[in-house]
Amino acid sequence: MGRTMTDALAPGARVTVQGWVHRRRTLAGVTFVVLRDRTGLAQVVVKDPATIREVAGYGEETVVSVTGTVLANPVAPGGVEVVDPRFETLTDPAETPPVQLWRPTPQAGLPTLLDHAPVALRHPRLAASWRLAAASMHGFRSALSAAGFTEVQTPKLVEMSTESGANVFTVDYFGRPAYLAQSPQLYKQVLVGVFERVFEVGPVFRAEQHDTLRHVAEYVSLDAEVGFVRDHRDVIAVLREALAGMVAAVRERAASAVGLLDVRLPVVPEEIPVVHFRDALRIAGAPPDEPDLAPEHERALSAWALAELGSELLAVEGYPMRKRPFYTHPQTVPEPDPQWSNSFDVLFRGLELTTGGQRLHRYADYRAALAASGQDEAAYAGYLEAFRHGMPPHGGFAIGLERWVARLTGASNIREVTLFPRDLHRLSP
Amino acid sequence: MGRTMTDALAPGARVTVQGWVHRRRTLAGVTFVVLRDRTGLAQVVVKDPATIREVAGYGEETVVSVTGTVLANPVAPGGVEVVDPRFETLTDPAETPPVQLWRPTPQAGLPTLLDHAPVALRHPRLAASWRLAAASMHGFRSALSAAGFTEVQTPKLVEMSTESGANVFTVDYFGRPAYLAQSPQLYKQVLVGVFERVFEVGPVFRAEQHDTLRHVAEYVSLDAEVGFVRDHRDVIAVLREALAGMVAAVRERAASAVGLLDVRLPVVPEEIPVVHFRDALRIAGAPPDEPDLAPEHERALSAWALAELGSELLAVEGYPMRKRPFYTHPQTVPEPDPQWSNSFDVLFRGLELTTGGQRLHRYADYRAALAASGQDEAAYAGYLEAFRHGMPPHGGFAIGLERWVARLTGASNIREVTLFPRDLHRLSP
Repeated sequence: MGRTMTDALAPGARVTVQGWVHRRRTLAGVTFVVLRDRTGLAQVVVKDPATIREVAGYGEETVVSVTGTVLANPVAPGGVEVVDPRFETLTDPAETPPVQLWRPTPQAGLPTLLDHAPVALRHPRLAASWRLAAASMHGFRSALSAAGFTEVQTPKLVEMSTESGANVFTVDYFGRPAYLAQSPQLYKQVLVGVFERVFEVGPVFRAEQHDTLRHVAEYVSLDAEVGFVRDHRDVIAVLREALAGMVAAVRERAASAVGLLDVRLPVVPEEIPVVHFRDALRIAGAPPDEPDLAPEHERALSAWALAELGSELLAVEGYPMRKRPFYTHPQTVPEPDPQWSNSFDVLFRGLELTTGGQRLHRYADYRAALAASGQDEAAYAGYLEAFRHGMPPHGGFAIGLERWVARLTGASNIREVTLFPRDLHRLSP
Repeated sequence: MGRTMTDALAPGARVTVQGWVHRRRTLAGVTFVVLRDRTGLAQVVVKDPATIREVAGYGEETVVSVTGTVLANPVAPGGVEVVDPRFETLTDPAETPPVQLWRPTPQAGLPTLLDHAPVALRHPRLAASWRLAAASMHGFRSALSAAGFTEVQTPKLVEMSTESGANVFTVDYFGRPAYLAQSPQLYKQVLVGVFERVFEVGPVFRAEQHDTLRHVAEYVSLDAEVGFVRDHRDVIAVLREALAGMVAAVRERAASAVGLLDVRLPVVPEEIPVVHFRDALRIAGAPPDEPDLAPEHERALSAWALAELGSELLAVEGYPMRKRPFYTHPQTVPEPDPQWSNSFDVLFRGLELTTGGQRLHRYADYRAALAASGQDEAAYAGYLEAFRHGMPPHGGFAIGLERWVARLTGASNIREVTLFPRDLHRLSP
């Protein structure tokens, strides 16, 4: 089970390779079979009439084992081909797939690709998208592990919704209601009290009532939280390390996917440039009393950052407190001002990639914040216990994995880069 | 935010360290403050009367920043102590924790530790247990990545239960029922069709109706699935690599946790020894018509493997088909026999650690297996589509992360090594 197409094919050698019949082309007296395995494609040249007849019965996606001689051929994919082949099928001949996997780009529309994801994902371009995601997860973890972070896994079944009652899925938990965690926010903060620096890579759940291109009901969140920060700018510095690690890992571990999808990887600057929300509104040409950035403002800001600062990443700090969750720390830098916050969004190529910030850390501040937002302290008992017993100044951020990959590939719909998306209308496959 | 206790304390230097007041001891004219951060403990010696008075107000778990001079002291923890300290509090003085975190072993019972997990987990022994888990995840991933596996993240919200209707949580999914995945089984198989070799580390959900020491309602599953196997013994070989990687990572990345908890790491043999289920019954002294191994049989087999084979790991192959799920491949080795299966359990220190095996891979076999088990093909449409369009012989396994850690630490209750356990009675904190 070990030999692969890209590392095994030394000219002259007699080899056995295993894979899927990706494509068959029948000419006069010769059939070309392109085999696919996890590492790429290899061309098999069939000239023996009996074998040609045999191969005629192998529909695309039939799984075969091929033994043959490797021959150099500069015009073949990979520069080599396999001649004098002997075929053995490892399963029954496959039925013709619902999507033509051998075409350079899938010809089917997105609904068809999603309906048939179990097979459509075999298309090299679709598989390549996920390889970017897999490499990104690796890079996120290694950058943060190198910085002393501990990986955690927090419960997805929770007694209350994380931040509000909206968009939350309800579970029948042994006869009483439980909820699916919308984020590991409260747990990752609590765990800063244990490990100082934590990260988590795992599913989060949002009962999004509207169909949009940017939202699905379940996605993978790359979460980090770090203690002993001075303010949110220390958090942005950690985010910078995570993003640099992700880009480096994609470059190193998913090079062929980057090539196939023609991904232009961003340069992560030594320091992500920061503008204040107030200035961001002005730059984007928005009215000065807007409480948030609209999509067109995010696009304008990204264009500005690229043109003026030469950066594809831009942090906007100081979002108005009234638009941020109760655990948000009020602004201390650039100057103390309680109407603004020590929180930020990071924009990447015209869209919000990350939300993060410094959190409150004093018990008294939490009690006041919950009271001010009209919430019941009892519902937050476990969370508050951490603060009652000493929590350092801390902050963190979350990156949506699929949203990040969509930015890399230029996919306009997040579903294009999600393995088996879930939304208002889709719960399978 | 970067300096830590164990790497910063060079004798003679003036340093600032940040952490929690772990323990205070007041003698005549001197107060010892033991500080704790993510890397360990450091002793601060307070002799200045004003500072002694100040420190008297810092309850345990108060978060402080201490600037002082490092002095060699062979009897202090770490061989150094900090003298002439100046303290700064980073938060309000903490209330006394519900569990005395400074005691070498927590004196509280398990229910108290779980009720107060947000603070109790700060106890160095409890935090150390999770460090074993974090290192194990790292080792699992790196061993499999090195073997060409791709990491995947599959949906936890599914349209049907994975294997049976039992023990499954129901979710209100936009007004219709959905279920929480009991395992990534069906998805990881489908993804073998895409990536050949896949692994996933993520939560799985079991609505366990009974309180047992070995089961919780949500745990972390380390899943792998590999294509182009000859039979289940190739899968056992992959499992061997994963376990070896986990042990190596625990040794390298969680050395201080291993020391603190006095963990004896297993030697993973070059090849995990295999016995057939039939022989296992005989060795365990069980009746030859038993359909499964009881806990006492597992203990007897582990004792036998250690005594006779010098191995703490033992694979039992050939479990009766009637006790295994519908996708199980019938036995082909040691000899073809349809009453037995190409599936296995691996026992570790007297308990089942892993279940795995070869799966069916032919479309016709799946149709027959579903019909034989009285299940509706329509419910498995997406899954079956993968097999209709060519799937290689494949197999895989799953390791329960917390169960693995419990075996390492000797914890009798899985809850002792789960960050925030969920069960029939417990949904918080």
